[in-house]
Amino acid sequence: MTPDEFRRHGHEVVEWIADYFETIRDRPVLPPVQPGDLTAQLPAHGPEEPEPMDRILADFRERIVPANTHWNHPAFHAWFSISGTPPAVLAEALAAALNVNGMLWKSSPACTELEQLTLHWLGEWLGLPPDWFGLIYDTASTAGVHALACARHRADPASRQHGNAGRHYTVYCSELAHSFIEKSAMTVGFGLDAVRRVPVDSAFRLRPDALSALIAADRATGRTPACIVATIGTTAVASVDPLPAIAEIAAREKLWLHVDAAYAGAAAVSEKYRHHLAGAAAADSFAVNPHKWLLTPTDLCAFYTRDPAALRGAFSLVPEYLRTDDGSAVNLMDYGFQLGRRFRALKLWFVMRSYGRRGVAAIIEGHCDMAADFASRLLADGRFEIAAPVEFSLVCFRFRGSDEENRALLEAINATGRAFLSHAVVDGRYVLRMAIGNWQTSREDMTKLAAMVTNLAPGAC
Amino acid sequence: MTPDEFRRHGHEVVEWIADYFETIRDRPVLPPVQPGDLTAQLPAHGPEEPEPMDRILADFRERIVPANTHWNHPAFHAWFSISGTPPAVLAEALAAALNVNGMLWKSSPACTELEQLTLHWLGEWLGLPPDWFGLIYDTASTAGVHALACARHRADPASRQHGNAGRHYTVYCSELAHSFIEKSAMTVGFGLDAVRRVPVDSAFRLRPDALSALIAADRATGRTPACIVATIGTTAVASVDPLPAIAEIAAREKLWLHVDAAYAGAAAVSEKYRHHLAGAAAADSFAVNPHKWLLTPTDLCAFYTRDPAALRGAFSLVPEYLRTDDGSAVNLMDYGFQLGRRFRALKLWFVMRSYGRRGVAAIIEGHCDMAADFASRLLADGRFEIAAPVEFSLVCFRFRGSDEENRALLEAINATGRAFLSHAVVDGRYVLRMAIGNWQTSREDMTKLAAMVTNLAPGAC
Repeated sequence: MTPDEFRRHGHEVVEWIADYFETIRDRPVLPPVQPGDLTAQLPAHGPEEPEPMDRILADFRERIVPANTHWNHPAFHAWFSISGTPPAVLAEALAAALNVNGMLWKSSPACTELEQLTLHWLGEWLGLPPDWFGLIYDTASTAGVHALACARHRADPASRQHGNAGRHYTVYCSELAHSFIEKSAMTVGFGLDAVRRVPVDSAFRLRPDALSALIAADRATGRTPACIVATIGTTAVASVDPLPAIAEIAAREKLWLHVDAAYAGAAAVSEKYRHHLAGAAAADSFAVNPHKWLLTPTDLCAFYTRDPAALRGAFSLVPEYLRTDDGSAVNLMDYGFQLGRRFRALKLWFVMRSYGRRGVAAIIEGHCDMAADFASRLLADGRFEIAAPVEFSLVCFRFRGSDEENRALLEAINATGRAFLSHAVVDGRYVLRMAIGNWQTSREDMTKLAAMVTNLAPGAC
Repeated sequence: MTPDEFRRHGHEVVEWIADYFETIRDRPVLPPVQPGDLTAQLPAHGPEEPEPMDRILADFRERIVPANTHWNHPAFHAWFSISGTPPAVLAEALAAALNVNGMLWKSSPACTELEQLTLHWLGEWLGLPPDWFGLIYDTASTAGVHALACARHRADPASRQHGNAGRHYTVYCSELAHSFIEKSAMTVGFGLDAVRRVPVDSAFRLRPDALSALIAADRATGRTPACIVATIGTTAVASVDPLPAIAEIAAREKLWLHVDAAYAGAAAVSEKYRHHLAGAAAADSFAVNPHKWLLTPTDLCAFYTRDPAALRGAFSLVPEYLRTDDGSAVNLMDYGFQLGRRFRALKLWFVMRSYGRRGVAAIIEGHCDMAADFASRLLADGRFEIAAPVEFSLVCFRFRGSDEENRALLEAINATGRAFLSHAVVDGRYVLRMAIGNWQTSREDMTKLAAMVTNLAPGAC
């Protein structure tokens, strides 16, 4: 593709993206397709000869997009709702053109320094300690693997050499914490049995007394408690674990405390919600995903630690063929197992500058207000209950009827194509989850959604 | 940013990228900056208020780009040289706009099915067994972590529950294999001590007899040999381990055989180089990075396995809040520890279609021919030796003098800004590495480079 061909198709792509943002409400959020439908439309073998970009872009528009679940749709309310905003789209195109691997400072001073700087900026926006070391991983799952590895390194610095070496490490989190904790425990060789799910209180928050008891029981049976994972904004209901009490236990027991604030951590950009991070300064590591609620496309997990030496201890090698002469710069490859490093900081930098702290805070506050308003409308209807406190932009609700009726309601909503919600099981009951996180979601969208939900529920007039 | 503002700045970005591709030879490959130079030019704190995109793009052009090491430069010959090609840049912009998370089929049928399809296409291009299961990870390092986890699962299926459980797993690779193997071993809790570096022969290939002996010694001392990693294209010299003999040992010893073909695997797209993968069909897992030599920007590692059940056994959980009704579709989150999944397949699909297999093969063959020609020119000069067989697009060479003279030569080359090479230590001696992998590198570029190297070496006329 010559530069002029790139210009022609590039301008076409820019127009398509602008139209997509503008007209996205006309598309069904969930595509009406079955497994295999897309595959059946595409050639079973790759082409021997080059194909013209016109044909590739036509297939993108006519085959790929109609088989896509539109995460960037303002009526995408499933799991956690996210945003790929226009400034970040520009940054991703630029990052792909530069195509750096920021493994070393020397391999891209720009990538290394901008990653450190944007994470410092973001830490300030969230009120995190200014001396924490920040870097970017792909996902909160990868952050979890690194946190457990740091915990192991603290419990036994020689684990770098001899691995788990017969120890039975244990990890603690609330029963509502994310499943990445089990996956991380499997990955680092602790196994599923190592994960202790701590009971929660009536507001779905980890119970510190139960945590202490579990740690004591494990010590009594010769296990090695290594890590506590506290959650700010649990996946099912967005509850907030009591960080100050948990941090006290972690300090007393000398355990690594990882705070998973993947979704709700972003709320601290607004002073109104910053109190939810009270106690976070006592953590050893902290993860928030700008690709969730900070207007940045996937993937970008911001990871902070007070103890970067633990990361280096657990992961740094520096083989001869990667050795550079200058020892004064940070080489980000020393802080994790992934050598390759995309220029992810660029999109975060574009977003932070385009919106400013106040702009981001206004969007987040708007989402929270819309969520509270949606909950009020359902309550006012009389046929619904709210299944968990609405602290952020997630509403867990339930038609006052059977699980089967709620499941049917969810299916009816999603089948319209005009919204996509997900579900959870809370206190043994099936509940619907409505999450807001898209930059284009408006009050009008939410009014329509509330009307649709009430109209589709049994007993609608 | 309104759709019209996106249009305006989007077109500006497209023009900038086209100019960048067109005029990239005018830029120094390595920026003349010191650690902290960029940081000192940027505000220490993020902005409270939104900033105009004109200013952000100006800072990108005037501050970020001049502090960048240009991996996409045709004279980037360090480590392994890579390409972010124009079609893939378009795909990355589109992927950022769609912003899907392909964790489940339902969460993006398009992402899930295109990932399976493109990896099937690529497997055919490389001559891999058609029934292998393929999926995308970010990097070869992450592929390594998954391979070791699969190896552990095969050695002890209950490790899913009880982790490493007092076993001392061991891992085998050549002394020239990539450092991700140590990092993976540290990550999964085997520790550095678990990695056995097997001696190589005079052509830098793992010695099967030494491998057998090391495995026997470990069994004799109660260790649990779990995984062999064979390399097609080692990092330092791009040597090729003898796969058929290694596969025989792996089968006899019932060890998981992972093939790391991150760089050189791509060469098999050309029939001329496909023989280097002879024996790969007997592997348990295989990784090649299209972001290295397959014209695709970072990050994209293609991972194949004959035994997807091992991946599921080691990683699948499927918690309630992610459960979907239909059991017939592949949910890619079940095949690794990372839940989040970017729409990476889109850029690979754009590249494979834009170039076709013949187009990719022609570029790869061209790179190999240029490398061979470069080696010939150095040999013809008389003052240089070639430090390792040139099988692909990497030339390891050495001025016939001291390590210090070679180090000075490398520094002199890189200081010109007109090329960037790296180094390695081979057989205890310092050698220069010149890798070709950029879509824009031409024979004329290489002629100039050879002239520069010979002119800068001691004793030039």
